[in-house]
Order: sequence, then C-alpha cells, then structure tokens
Amino acid sequence: MDAPVLLTGWAGHVGRTILDGLADRYTWRLFDRDPPSGSPPGEVFVADITDREVLRSAIDGVGAVIHLAGDPRPEAPWDSLLRNNIDGTQAVFELAAEAGVEKVIFASSNHAVGGYETAARQPDIYRAEDDFELDGNEQPRPGNLYGVSKVAGETLGRYYHDEFGLSVVCVRIGNLTEERPPRDYERGQAMWLSTDDCAHLFECCLSAEYDYEIVYGISDNDRRYYSLARARSVLGYDPRDNSADYED
Amino acid sequence: MDAPVLLTGWAGHVGRTILDGLADRYTWRLFDRDPPSGSPPGEVFVADITDREVLRSAIDGVGAVIHLAGDPRPEAPWDSLLRNNIDGTQAVFELAAEAGVEKVIFASSNHAVGGYETAARQPDIYRAEDDFELDGNEQPRPGNLYGVSKVAGETLGRYYHDEFGLSVVCVRIGNLTEERPPRDYERGQAMWLSTDDCAHLFECCLSAEYDYEIVYGISDNDRRYYSLARARSVLGYDPRDNSADYED
Repeated sequence: MDAPVLLTGWAGHVGRTILDGLADRYTWRLFDRDPPSGSPPGEVFVADITDREVLRSAIDGVGAVIHLAGDPRPEAPWDSLLRNNIDGTQAVFELAAEAGVEKVIFASSNHAVGGYETAARQPDIYRAEDDFELDGNEQPRPGNLYGVSKVAGETLGRYYHDEFGLSVVCVRIGNLTEERPPRDYERGQAMWLSTDDCAHLFECCLSAEYDYEIVYGISDNDRRYYSLARARSVLGYDPRDNSADYED
Repeated sequence: MDAPVLLTGWAGHVGRTILDGLADRYTWRLFDRDPPSGSPPGEVFVADITDREVLRSAIDGVGAVIHLAGDPRPEAPWDSLLRNNIDGTQAVFELAAEAGVEKVIFASSNHAVGGYETAARQPDIYRAEDDFELDGNEQPRPGNLYGVSKVAGETLGRYYHDEFGLSVVCVRIGNLTEERPPRDYERGQAMWLSTDDCAHLFECCLSAEYDYEIVYGISDNDRRYYSLARARSVLGYDPRDNSADYED
C-alpha cells in the first residue's frame, strides 16, 4: 500500500506493537487523544475519536485505516463505551466511506464472544484436548458491555461494507503481551497473541484482498478455541508463536 | 402474568396494536415521551427513554417489559439512533436487570438483517417459490443504521440474559399494516404482519418460557423468507393471516 495508513489509538499497546514491527514499511498518520512524547514515526493528529472535523482531515487521502481507538477497559462504564467505542467507530466508518478509503481494519476483541465461555465449558474450553471452537461465523455473544461495544463496531463494519463497498476486516484480538504468555492464566494462554504475530497479522490485513471478514487475532496456541482458518486462508496469516512453548 | 407489564413507546403503531388486542388482559404501565391524549388503559409515564430516573420508577415492580420505544425511522440519523435506540435500550435492560424483571421483549426489526436482501437475490427472495430463508441463527447484517441500532439492542439482550438471567426475546418485526397487506410491494407482502397476529405474538412473548431468543414477527405469508419455526416452537405463535389471501 503506497497511500498513507491512518492508525487510530496508536499510543496504546496494540498500536505501539504495530509501529514497532511496521514503522518503516508504511507512511503513517497517527491519531490519538493524547499528545505524543518523543518523535512518533508519522504525522500526528491529537483529538478525541468522536471529533469528526479532525478525523476527516486525518482520513482524507489515506488508503487504509487501522482503527484501534476506544476505551480498552473490559469493565469500562457504558457512557464511555457508547461515546468512545460505538460513536467513535461509526465516525471512522462514515468518514472512511465518504473519503473513499479502500480498507478499514477494525480492532474488535475476544470479549465480543466472551459469553461462550460459560461456567459449564470452563476450564475445559481453555485446554488443548477440548474441541470446542469459534470460527467467526457464530452469532456475537459478548461477555461484558465492552464486548457489546465491539460487536456494535463489527456490525457497523458489515453495514459500511455492504452499502459502500469498503473492505473491512474485524480482528478479534486475544491477549497481547510484551514478552511471554501470561503465567497461571489458562484463558490468556489460549488466546495469547505474541508481539511478532500481532505486527505480522496487521501487515496481512493491510496487504490482503477481502470483502468483509471476522478473524481471530491469536498466536498458533495448542490451547486455542478460536479458529485461525479464515485468517490463514483469506489474509495469509502465518503465526510463528505458541503459548505451549512457554509452559512451565 | 399477574404483575404489571411496562410498555415503552406505547403510542406508536406497534404499541397501539398491542393495546387494541390486549388492553384488558394485563395491568399496563405506559411509557412514552409524548403526553397522552384521551384515557390510555394504564398508568402513564412521560419521559425520554434515556431518562433513567423516570424509567427506574416505571420498571420497579413489573413482571415484564415490552420495549418498543426508539426512533422508528429506517433513515433516522445516527445521533438519534445512538441516543434513542442504543442508549435507550441499554437503559431498559440495565434497569430491568436491577429490578429483577422476569422478561424483556425487545422490538427488533427486519432491518437488522436487511443486508441479506442483496441485489442478486431480488426480487426472487420476495416470492413464494424462492427457498432462501433466514431463521434467526444467521449473523446480523443490517441494511441501514437503524438496523445497526436494532442489532445493538439484540446484542445488549444477549449480554443481559447471559449475565443476569433475564428472559429475553427479540422480535424482528416485519411490515405491520392497519388492514390489508401493502399493494404493489412484494417485500412488504413477504414480511407482512397483520394486527391480529401482532397482538397474538406479543401475548405469546408474555406467556411463554424462554432463555434468549430471536424470532421473526410476520404473518403466515406464502412469500416469506423469514422462518416462523422458533416463534411457533418456543412461543406457541400460531399466526392466522397470510398476505397471499389478499393478492389482487
């Protein structure tokens, strides 16, 4: 992709991981509500994600948007989710459609389907020998209001794809950690996403061709209950890490 | 159900149809943003659906909520949908859970899945000989932002059922008309809902036992592409009307 890429919420954990891996490969526009410290690798826009005026100027002329901005707290209060995650994501899709952007890559979350982790399925669901699997074709089933807000974002993506032809991929991101997988946390080991696999996955999202997709963003973990089939076949995702390699 | 039933948005078309059929069978609490004219058959609450203070007093002590309030326009602007349909529905579910209400019946819409009516499927999808069918297990695919707001309501219902044990049924209402089905409008004939069937369906929702359900709210139309299987089997819905009986 030669046109610039807009990265919203770039100062968060996922954003920094993407920039650590891909800073030199694209021309970046970087949107966040907080002013940067240091010298970020791109043109900086400082505004709330619901500020449609600044967002419009940031989107104009880009080829793709990676939309990470939003309240990342699983226990965030509804008012914040409504404003930052739902209204903010509508703003991104609407203005991307208006500007003729080719691709929008939406950071969804494992919490969009957290309700499938019922008491009856735990802890087996988190173990390699269990064969329960989610492949992205299931109905949404959020485990908290944060998950509800992410489903709303996915649904907006479906609509803006159907109506305006945007290529949209929703990445249900697992548990991204700095170094090794979490210890003593089977759920986190099952949905672990290494930093290398994270940067590689978002590069796949920028380079592949697709219509509307929901994929799971995790490493190639033995314990996983999220299918990697669509990410592999549609995006060419080829993860190298596996939380099983770190079990003590 | 002996406890009162709260009907939000009672002054709209669906609300009046429910009251026309069922006014004498329940003790009603009637919530709408406009003051009533005449003498409605229940205790009246006048407030915006996002007014949590009035809504809390209206919900306290009811056995069920039929939640119809919201902006009903398929072309409604996003700001209104965000406030009235998404935030308003979250308020209803949150306060119903807080008050220990047994059932919430949520007025969803055919627009939650309007995106399945692709150009390639039209007009065959609207004809009796076509076998394309939606049964409520498909992924949401809204045809407009109004449909996005209805999917958000369904997703909130899923979460509040899973987390708080509320019985929730989402009724994807078709095309309710006063008398006969629409003329020269195949889509409307396919998803026609007669007034008698509408009142009967909501009575089924008040009396049946269920966990979380998505059903289609239409009459027994030959042209239909929405399955009635779940409404029949779970709710005991037994529609009597068929738009084919009116074709000229």
